[in-house]
Amino acid sequence: MNFNVVKGTRDFLPQEMNKRNYIFNTIKEVFLLHGFSQIETPAMENLSTLMGKYGEEGDKLLYKILNSGNFLEKVENLNEELDYKKLTPKICQKGLRYDLTVPFARFVVNHQNDISFPFKRYQIQPVWRADRPQKGRYREFYQCDCDIIGSNSLLNEVEIIEILDEVFNRLSLNVEIKISNRKILSAIAQLINREDKLIEITTSIDKMDKIGYDKVVEDLITNGLTLDEVNKITPILKLEGDISFKLDKLKEIFSALPIGLKGIEEMYFIMNNIKNLNIKSEINLDLTLARGLNYYTGTIIEVKVKDMPLGSIAGGGRYDNLTKIFGLDNLSGVGVSFGADRIYDALEQLSLFDENIEKTSTIMFVNFGEKEAKICNIYAQELRNEGIKTELYPDNVKIQKQMKYANDKKIPFVGLVGEKEMAENKIQLKDMISGKQETLSLIEVKKIIEGK
Amino acid sequence: MNFNVVKGTRDFLPQEMNKRNYIFNTIKEVFLLHGFSQIETPAMENLSTLMGKYGEEGDKLLYKILNSGNFLEKVENLNEELDYKKLTPKICQKGLRYDLTVPFARFVVNHQNDISFPFKRYQIQPVWRADRPQKGRYREFYQCDCDIIGSNSLLNEVEIIEILDEVFNRLSLNVEIKISNRKILSAIAQLINREDKLIEITTSIDKMDKIGYDKVVEDLITNGLTLDEVNKITPILKLEGDISFKLDKLKEIFSALPIGLKGIEEMYFIMNNIKNLNIKSEINLDLTLARGLNYYTGTIIEVKVKDMPLGSIAGGGRYDNLTKIFGLDNLSGVGVSFGADRIYDALEQLSLFDENIEKTSTIMFVNFGEKEAKICNIYAQELRNEGIKTELYPDNVKIQKQMKYANDKKIPFVGLVGEKEMAENKIQLKDMISGKQETLSLIEVKKIIEGK
Repeated sequence: MNFNVVKGTRDFLPQEMNKRNYIFNTIKEVFLLHGFSQIETPAMENLSTLMGKYGEEGDKLLYKILNSGNFLEKVENLNEELDYKKLTPKICQKGLRYDLTVPFARFVVNHQNDISFPFKRYQIQPVWRADRPQKGRYREFYQCDCDIIGSNSLLNEVEIIEILDEVFNRLSLNVEIKISNRKILSAIAQLINREDKLIEITTSIDKMDKIGYDKVVEDLITNGLTLDEVNKITPILKLEGDISFKLDKLKEIFSALPIGLKGIEEMYFIMNNIKNLNIKSEINLDLTLARGLNYYTGTIIEVKVKDMPLGSIAGGGRYDNLTKIFGLDNLSGVGVSFGADRIYDALEQLSLFDENIEKTSTIMFVNFGEKEAKICNIYAQELRNEGIKTELYPDNVKIQKQMKYANDKKIPFVGLVGEKEMAENKIQLKDMISGKQETLSLIEVKKIIEGK
Repeated sequence: MNFNVVKGTRDFLPQEMNKRNYIFNTIKEVFLLHGFSQIETPAMENLSTLMGKYGEEGDKLLYKILNSGNFLEKVENLNEELDYKKLTPKICQKGLRYDLTVPFARFVVNHQNDISFPFKRYQIQPVWRADRPQKGRYREFYQCDCDIIGSNSLLNEVEIIEILDEVFNRLSLNVEIKISNRKILSAIAQLINREDKLIEITTSIDKMDKIGYDKVVEDLITNGLTLDEVNKITPILKLEGDISFKLDKLKEIFSALPIGLKGIEEMYFIMNNIKNLNIKSEINLDLTLARGLNYYTGTIIEVKVKDMPLGSIAGGGRYDNLTKIFGLDNLSGVGVSFGADRIYDALEQLSLFDENIEKTSTIMFVNFGEKEAKICNIYAQELRNEGIKTELYPDNVKIQKQMKYANDKKIPFVGLVGEKEMAENKIQLKDMISGKQETLSLIEVKKIIEGK
């Protein structure tokens, strides 16, 4: 019998939960400070809501749920249906959430009369993908998204950048925020009159980091560009310098391309508004950044940990028509998604988790027997009333075993109440780190613990 | 096209999320004060882990996930498999979590070498059941469990009762904690030599509340008891009085039944240890309480809101062999599960949610244009640095529209910075409740907001 977890999914042990909660709580706190509200959507959605939203590959990766009861009952001509692709929609009506974006779009359309626009929502829930599991890629993982929908203002982009900067500052992660703009990418394609090749061009230049300039050129030519066309855009691809230098150069290059100028203008606005906001992260214009081109329409954002080959730990952008797929038009939004698993890996590798993060209780009372336990339970209650995490070892077993438990759980204080202490209304308090042991009153114990 | 949520599942709007978070956070806080650690398990489990654990009915209510890819490929003799019951295990290997208990048992067995026993864990995650949806019954709902596993001590039962009392006190819910004991129920069956009918007897008397004594007698007889046997246990069923009176009476009745006396002794211990712990909830012995007899072996607990016909809002008990199904024997545990949806309904009906619970931001700055917005963004950042939830309306639209947004989101303060205020480095602060408006410095604004 196989009682393991499903391949590609994970149990989270207490230590891992504490670290994950630290990440989620940090992000949540920043979202709340910026006036975002939390929503949740169901794990299961109708397949009609999910199918066709993530491309053909995505449709395959959707987990489908077998209809309840006699799922074959309504299948007519069963023998003709023996092609699994034809059979699937007849026996499955529901699927598991693949991301938070499509359910969010459905949510906005369904509840458009119950929410205030611009709607600032955050959502932290697991998603499921029937992907081949590999290092760092799971079949169940949490997404952690915030979006502002129903406003065209670029101040929302500014806010998203502020949020990114604030979250990673709080996590002590030194990051680079890369920005790009779909309009600028379009202008590059227009420059050589190859708008038909926009996706191919951006896909190729997106590989710059991985394969280098020469291979990108090869890739572009394989994708149908002429060498002449490639040469025309080379100055853009090779553009070096800080963001304002690059923008100024691009402005010259795009002087006859309105869409390019619009993209530049958007960038100027964002940079201009960020200037006085004490952003600590490095912000760079990265034209090789071309994520999510099937739905991003303006700003594109990606965050990487500096000096660490970890891939993107957050990303997002502006989309002009997310809810159109569900029949609600003209609702522009911008959002960002935090990759909790990658952030976890980065903090772990850089030893940025507080060592106290594994601590559960602050004090444990040793169990010396029924009478003593009764007194300790009363002490425990009084300490908890002061907000001090307290436990009493439930079994009257050898003290070594009890101390080992406290030690394994990294409980910093142990309280010992034997006959002598009971008679004197005292507690022998052992500091598990220094090993120091003193006989104290409950009030003194409180003071020492709270002083820590 | 149907873009609604799946029947029996729900979207949660921000206001609902705030209320739900209040409930979960209250419970979590109490768990943490008692030294419990959080774990999470995957939504999907192998069906071999889930099947056969919830009875025949439960197996039917499990959501099964279609195997990925060509799920028919490995089905031999497809034409013979056209019985859906035979086909299911061939095309589905995974199912959705039905409760938190079975995954917890699997978790303990898989991680027995990584955790410290007694293991105090809590877990708050959704579960899924393909049940017929009806008022108050959903196909996706959260369970919120805490368990102490690996200790036989009855002090754990005491702690569970403390936790229940503390949670419901914090939620201002006036509850009755009903306790019962499997051993006492067994003794009742032994009393008439009908241990073979234990389940039937307890199932019948469990209905006492709903159908009354006479119907319970009919039910018992239909279930195979003689009138003579029923008469013999009638004094127990009709036992009235407080818990110590009932226990004393039962001690007499069970004088020759060791298992009954053991159950009574357990109860005495619990009551005795609770005595000095300032438990505010009413605690009663309720022998008609017979939940989960297929796995509870000792204490059984159920919590009801007083004077409200709402059913149980929490329940649990002692189980001696939860992990045996996964091959790990002799691990006794006790736990309790909070019914978040019912607690929500109770708090709603009794108007016990704080009216400020719907508040998101504390202050919103009105957007008067680019220059003004830039200044407001700097103010906003400074307020957020002080922990004040702040937003800036992103669009420069009519002030009425912006004020309506603040009002709808119940934002208590609005900051107005026009040309005059900019020149003076001031903010016009409007108190949205009193309507009062004053021109203040940023420091004064902070003080007023923090004073609230």
